[in-house]
Amino acid sequence: MEKVRIGIVGLGRLGKRHAYNLANLVPGAELRAACSPIQTELDWAGSELGVPKLYANFDDMLAQSDIDAVWIASSSVRHASQVLAALDRGLHVFTEKPMGVTLDECASIERAVAAHSAQVFLVGFVRRFDPSYRYAKELVDNGAIGTPFLVRSQTCDLDEYAEFQLEFVKTGGGIFLDMNVHDIDLVRWFIGSEIAQVHAVGGSYVHPGFAELGDADNTVCLATFENGAMAVLSASRTAFHGHDTHTEIVGSKGILKVGTTPRKNRVEIFDAHGARTDCVRDFYERFEEGFITEAREFVACIREGRAPDVSPRDGTAATRIGMAMTESYKKKITITL
Amino acid sequence: MEKVRIGIVGLGRLGKRHAYNLANLVPGAELRAACSPIQTELDWAGSELGVPKLYANFDDMLAQSDIDAVWIASSSVRHASQVLAALDRGLHVFTEKPMGVTLDECASIERAVAAHSAQVFLVGFVRRFDPSYRYAKELVDNGAIGTPFLVRSQTCDLDEYAEFQLEFVKTGGGIFLDMNVHDIDLVRWFIGSEIAQVHAVGGSYVHPGFAELGDADNTVCLATFENGAMAVLSASRTAFHGHDTHTEIVGSKGILKVGTTPRKNRVEIFDAHGARTDCVRDFYERFEEGFITEAREFVACIREGRAPDVSPRDGTAATRIGMAMTESYKKKITITL
Amino acid sequence: MEKVRIGIVGLGRLGKRHAYNLANLVPGAELRAACSPIQTELDWAGSELGVPKLYANFDDMLAQSDIDAVWIASSSVRHASQVLAALDRGLHVFTEKPMGVTLDECASIERAVAAHSAQVFLVGFVRRFDPSYRYAKELVDNGAIGTPFLVRSQTCDLDEYAEFQLEFVKTGGGIFLDMNVHDIDLVRWFIGSEIAQVHAVGGSYVHPGFAELGDADNTVCLATFENGAMAVLSASRTAFHGHDTHTEIVGSKGILKVGTTPRKNRVEIFDAHGARTDCVRDFYERFEEGFITEAREFVACIREGRAPDVSPRDGTAATRIGMAMTESYKKKITITL
Amino acid sequence: MEKVRIGIVGLGRLGKRHAYNLANLVPGAELRAACSPIQTELDWAGSELGVPKLYANFDDMLAQSDIDAVWIASSSVRHASQVLAALDRGLHVFTEKPMGVTLDECASIERAVAAHSAQVFLVGFVRRFDPSYRYAKELVDNGAIGTPFLVRSQTCDLDEYAEFQLEFVKTGGGIFLDMNVHDIDLVRWFIGSEIAQVHAVGGSYVHPGFAELGDADNTVCLATFENGAMAVLSASRTAFHGHDTHTEIVGSKGILKVGTTPRKNRVEIFDAHGARTDCVRDFYERFEEGFITEAREFVACIREGRAPDVSPRDGTAATRIGMAMTESYKKKITITL
Repeated sequence: MEKVRIGIVGLGRLGKRHAYNLANLVPGAELRAACSPIQTELDWAGSELGVPKLYANFDDMLAQSDIDAVWIASSSVRHASQVLAALDRGLHVFTEKPMGVTLDECASIERAVAAHSAQVFLVGFVRRFDPSYRYAKELVDNGAIGTPFLVRSQTCDLDEYAEFQLEFVKTGGGIFLDMNVHDIDLVRWFIGSEIAQVHAVGGSYVHPGFAELGDADNTVCLATFENGAMAVLSASRTAFHGHDTHTEIVGSKGILKVGTTPRKNRVEIFDAHGARTDCVRDFYERFEEGFITEAREFVACIREGRAPDVSPRDGTAATRIGMAMTESYKKKITITL
Repeated sequence: MEKVRIGIVGLGRLGKRHAYNLANLVPGAELRAACSPIQTELDWAGSELGVPKLYANFDDMLAQSDIDAVWIASSSVRHASQVLAALDRGLHVFTEKPMGVTLDECASIERAVAAHSAQVFLVGFVRRFDPSYRYAKELVDNGAIGTPFLVRSQTCDLDEYAEFQLEFVKTGGGIFLDMNVHDIDLVRWFIGSEIAQVHAVGGSYVHPGFAELGDADNTVCLATFENGAMAVLSASRTAFHGHDTHTEIVGSKGILKVGTTPRKNRVEIFDAHGARTDCVRDFYERFEEGFITEAREFVACIREGRAPDVSPRDGTAATRIGMAMTESYKKKITITL
Repeated sequence: MEKVRIGIVGLGRLGKRHAYNLANLVPGAELRAACSPIQTELDWAGSELGVPKLYANFDDMLAQSDIDAVWIASSSVRHASQVLAALDRGLHVFTEKPMGVTLDECASIERAVAAHSAQVFLVGFVRRFDPSYRYAKELVDNGAIGTPFLVRSQTCDLDEYAEFQLEFVKTGGGIFLDMNVHDIDLVRWFIGSEIAQVHAVGGSYVHPGFAELGDADNTVCLATFENGAMAVLSASRTAFHGHDTHTEIVGSKGILKVGTTPRKNRVEIFDAHGARTDCVRDFYERFEEGFITEAREFVACIREGRAPDVSPRDGTAATRIGMAMTESYKKKITITL
Repeated sequence: MEKVRIGIVGLGRLGKRHAYNLANLVPGAELRAACSPIQTELDWAGSELGVPKLYANFDDMLAQSDIDAVWIASSSVRHASQVLAALDRGLHVFTEKPMGVTLDECASIERAVAAHSAQVFLVGFVRRFDPSYRYAKELVDNGAIGTPFLVRSQTCDLDEYAEFQLEFVKTGGGIFLDMNVHDIDLVRWFIGSEIAQVHAVGGSYVHPGFAELGDADNTVCLATFENGAMAVLSASRTAFHGHDTHTEIVGSKGILKVGTTPRKNRVEIFDAHGARTDCVRDFYERFEEGFITEAREFVACIREGRAPDVSPRDGTAATRIGMAMTESYKKKITITL
């Protein structure tokens, strides 16, 4: 079977990791092209990964390169237009989250994916590919905890990244869209229903700068689903122990917890500080295996002619709910979707 | 120093345990009288604990017995009137929670306690006397986690008790007043501010009978404080692994978690079910040491002539907030206090 | 039923705790007499615990006091003679470990206990009364892990106590007799057979002073039982995280671990040091509940006219095996018992 | 930089995994040839991995294939001769453990490696490449626990594999050589000294068949080092919870534990069985990442012209000590090396 030839756009911090994975760790994939407006990033792709075709312009990559699929890791505001252009070219498309930054963008992509149903389209909800979350999902699907009716899910980043985030927030979507997007996807995935109502609160408890930008450094959102289930979605920019992604799924027969303690590895240290374990530092350390599995699944779907479990509808839902949470937080009201 | 002579009222399941503790495990205490409308309970107090004076009627115990203090473990609806009568007699008073079942009752008690300031008055918020919660409070007070701004606290009971609770709910206060009252006290204790707003949701996900009674078997409440802090208070009647009281205090420099896994003891079992630990079965098993410490603190306050840390204002707050949560849940609205 | 009147001898650090427990926390017990050569200790017993009769001399206490039982917490070298004298007086006897410091002493006690079979005699193997060890024993007895064939058990003390131990070692029995005595009892209890052979190694890895005294600060002993089972007994004077008593029972169907992490309580701390828990500091903090249960069991045996599970034979075995381990370590040979 | 062309010999259960890793997950590697006496295994390598050159005979692969390195995953008795032949051909060599099954074989390899010092030679002590063990080693090397003086290390396999092992034992090296070889390497690695004496005990506690073959199903070995340090090495064929590789490194300032609970992933389950986690099933699941890292390190050493940390001397030591443990167990004596 032929290898899937992939062109990546976006070679920033996360994009570089995707590129490395596609070039080295995905059987059946060939990273044939890379696109970035930054010349040093292109140089890196050429020299370190041996990517043969390098482009400063996305349209040039689509027009000139001999690729089967596009991997989009560019900045959020470009995702939708690049998805649409690539689908239009007949290419398979992976895009990092968010699928779109407006609901119009999301709707356009839903239509385009439907119109190109033979092409694989995958939004990068990486946690669905993490071994622990997959294991939890299998247990739930096998009835291990009965019917899930409450999911708590949180994303917490190291406090030392907060200063950098202060810059990023100016152009980003804010804490609910940037940090809770994965939690939104997870709670929908586990509950299997749509969120009907959100009520979000929060504040800038550690870094007043976020408040000055209309954002927050710690938030909690209470959500209810159409089927009556509940979710609690939290985000924090001020964790001191590490990157902490924790999800608890409560069902009618038992409970699953994923990642209660974000332990770095299997080492425990017993010394004058007590009994302790070091923690993972960032989302990439936590989800490294998920990122690789995600890429393998994308390629496998293409080679086997099947659709991924994640649909563009999931991408739209994440954006819509993240916006509703933001509105709830800013207006101090409950939002019904 | 003379022993503190105590009369207990209420010898139900929890009352019996209090009576045993007072009779055997509290230095400086003497359980001199017991009151219950049920003769077999009085017989038990006489024969098993050697309590010399036994009464079917509370007023008789106050009038005829030679006691310094009253320990109230009767049904919730009698707490307030018994507190007031005992204070009026010049006795020190311990009462199980809730302090009162209406805000009027609570207000009367606040006034009466203020008017009898030389008498010790203690509401049984037992978690404040649990060694782990005390340790957490000390760490917080010593600045170990900076300024707390978010507390999550939950109370979960074994599912096998749900059928019994179905009966109890008919006369009780419902899930928020009966189960979250301790969580309400804890979050106020750790945050050190008053709750300003609550938004509660929930449902009868496992036992429809609770819905028929206007109650729920699982709930979550999002609360905000006057100082801007947040709390998430959850309750469940449908835990399968054990009684699970878990509290997480998030501060500006770190996080404390109390009771993540409600392990029964220090034993771990490795067998065909994996690596596991048995869990505590009920609140008494979890808080046995707290109940004893609570009784010792009551007696110590009397002997040392000092006031407990818990005030009647705390008792009022628990009732008021529990009522607001109930209203929020029933009317599906956010309640501002 | 009459209370059991007890006289305690020895009011050092551990003796004081025993006295407090007997005076306050043991239903059915009355601490009527106390004996110590140190006047301030007797004063403490009188003023703090209200013990009515105080003696500087053990024989005086036996002769003059109106007691049913003696609780021996004096220095190890006095245990045997005091046990014999008390049994001879017709009293029930509890003695701290070691039962005797020579095998002759142990043999005398075995004979005396047999000759006074109506009197309760209990050696203070406190771990048998710890809730976690009791739970583990019940699980084993119920077949939860099949037939046990390997037990690992260790006792580790905080390094900061090592300097004090250096003094104590001069008159004590050495690391195997002083620290492993409880482990020896535990492995015999769980395996249910007698140790046939021991091979001990160790050294003074942190504090050379122990080597100068012919002792060690860390040791490991490999033992085999008459029934073919195995045990590993370890001791350390140089733990930095806390007092660490850990026992693992391996059976033909599963494994039990008691105390893998010596957590102080149910609090976990998440901060710049990672995810951690503080640990218990010393054996008393770890076994506080066991010491109380041990005293209650002694009194219950007296009141109910039954013999404790622990026999003088267990006391002899601990001394004999501890001596064999010491010999094995010093001579660098395997010792067959 | 050119890719390293590798030929693998041995396509059994573990060999297949090595082949998959080399073909797909090792940047800079090309799996160019495979050798197996079993045609279906060769077919698999050709069709699934796309290996271009397939051989039934090892010498043919050496003679005819255009390779830079050989990866030996054949049966233990062939390791040494294949290592020597490949070195002689000027190839880089990776060999699975054991390096040799006799001390003569080991000595020959040590000489050959010394004579071909420009060629990379690596013995597959996979645990050295496991992220947790590497992290522990870094901590030790950075002085986090002071000077290590005691290491406990155990290897336990699922009981359900015991029946298969009964067959394997007939031609294998027995429990000490087959299972403890990695533990031997680890304790030497962490202590940094040579083992001077071993005393091993054990038995067939669950499966009498092992005794009939002169082997055991559970063993413990107490070892001392030339520098005075100690080690306890255990093996079990009868674990019910999973594959359990656990190592504890005790130093003069603290303790590290690697893999206390062999958790399968980050999921915890709370249900009627208590609070639990599933465990890894076999060594490959536990060390999957280590196997990949090991292969990457081998290729990196070749490309960068440097020697691995593991030396043939380590391979010899593992065989020598495993033999001494076996002799100690069989003759019931202490063996001095």
